[in-house]
Amino acid sequence: MYKIVFMRHGESTWNLENRFTGWTDVDLTEKGIGEAKTAGRQLREAGFAFDLAYTSVLTRAIRTLWLAMDEMDMMWLPIKNDWRLNERHYGALQGLDKGETAAKFGDEQVLVWRRSYDTPPPSLEADDPRTSFADPRYAGLDQGSIPLTECLKDTVARVMPCWDEEIAPAIRAGKQILISAHGNSLRALIKMLDNISDDDIVSLNIPNGTPLVYELDADLKPIRHYYLGDQEAIAAKMAAVANQGKAK
Amino acid sequence: MYKIVFMRHGESTWNLENRFTGWTDVDLTEKGIGEAKTAGRQLREAGFAFDLAYTSVLTRAIRTLWLAMDEMDMMWLPIKNDWRLNERHYGALQGLDKGETAAKFGDEQVLVWRRSYDTPPPSLEADDPRTSFADPRYAGLDQGSIPLTECLKDTVARVMPCWDEEIAPAIRAGKQILISAHGNSLRALIKMLDNISDDDIVSLNIPNGTPLVYELDADLKPIRHYYLGDQEAIAAKMAAVANQGKAK
Repeated sequence: MYKIVFMRHGESTWNLENRFTGWTDVDLTEKGIGEAKTAGRQLREAGFAFDLAYTSVLTRAIRTLWLAMDEMDMMWLPIKNDWRLNERHYGALQGLDKGETAAKFGDEQVLVWRRSYDTPPPSLEADDPRTSFADPRYAGLDQGSIPLTECLKDTVARVMPCWDEEIAPAIRAGKQILISAHGNSLRALIKMLDNISDDDIVSLNIPNGTPLVYELDADLKPIRHYYLGDQEAIAAKMAAVANQGKAK
Repeated sequence: MYKIVFMRHGESTWNLENRFTGWTDVDLTEKGIGEAKTAGRQLREAGFAFDLAYTSVLTRAIRTLWLAMDEMDMMWLPIKNDWRLNERHYGALQGLDKGETAAKFGDEQVLVWRRSYDTPPPSLEADDPRTSFADPRYAGLDQGSIPLTECLKDTVARVMPCWDEEIAPAIRAGKQILISAHGNSLRALIKMLDNISDDDIVSLNIPNGTPLVYELDADLKPIRHYYLGDQEAIAAKMAAVANQGKAK
């Protein structure tokens, strides 16, 4: 039997400000830093050991991982940064306030952009200063791989090769793996693992900074999964994520 | 022309306590944290960019790197942890106070252990709780690779394959590299680069938390090297390192 642990990054400054973030490289809030440390402490107290960690190239996921590794006294753990674990790109909505966007376009349209599986938000223009073309962390990619917007289906399409080529072979090789990533890159992985439908995956809410343990059989099919920590607090966090897109 | 930057970790708790550290996994002091942040700020202000970072599997070098990467706003930089960049193993002296050891064995004997190229300090016994055999960060190594003591010559012998197999090919491939390591693993690299004699290398003192830039020609031979920062303060730090082994 295999085991893998997922963590969504701790609260970010734009989670707090209720703005669409996507590939924008915002940092954690003080609360998010606390969530990451708590996640590390919970993993340590539950006796988890790891051989390898994966994360995105975005600061909020990397800092969450570093803080958890520090709490576990495992700063030596090898880290693989993979852009394919980045958050879903939010296109022209990146930087906009979720409540204002909802007031302007209507709750329903925003809910479509947030939660439709295959309808992307409006695309960034190629010359928009918010594009990632000039960012050195993507310098190794051809420009066609760098999105200007994504629906969840697009995110799934780029996350899956990372699982198939990198993570799944490492699990099969016996590596104990910790993944620090984002709401939608984790949705992509969970959709695949639990075979969740296109309709249902968009309403799966993953709380910030909470270790999610998947136990897998020899074929990497899930046997069971559970969050570490206070289950009532986790339920409240999941409800809070669900409400983020609504106009106040 | 190529360029590579070396950093010795910031001051550690055992640098401060004047104890022999070696492979003991002590953390940075507040001063060491400040040194690491300053190093990152100096690199950023001097316009350095990197594609890849190497460090050891010891917390003080990793934290120095993380703090510098954070200051440079480059937390996404890929990190390769390599045990071969660890500090020289200090054998049975690990954990002992340098001043007390000097008072007991004499300045001269301690200077031999610290600064002879090929005379190692007394070895740890295989059943000493200070050995690294049970440490999970070395789980992938065969037991024969895990030292019980080392002279600088031994350290050079394990650092060089890391340079030849990993770092030099990456430089030749055009990668801009930052290395965060230790006094003696950096001595090993500098000995090789500058072709320094066995006698002279032992008195080369590398200050904590100070970026050391090497410019290399097409054959990876040094053209020049320099420390970033206030040159007088650096000279004072180098003198302080030289005096660490003396009885008070």
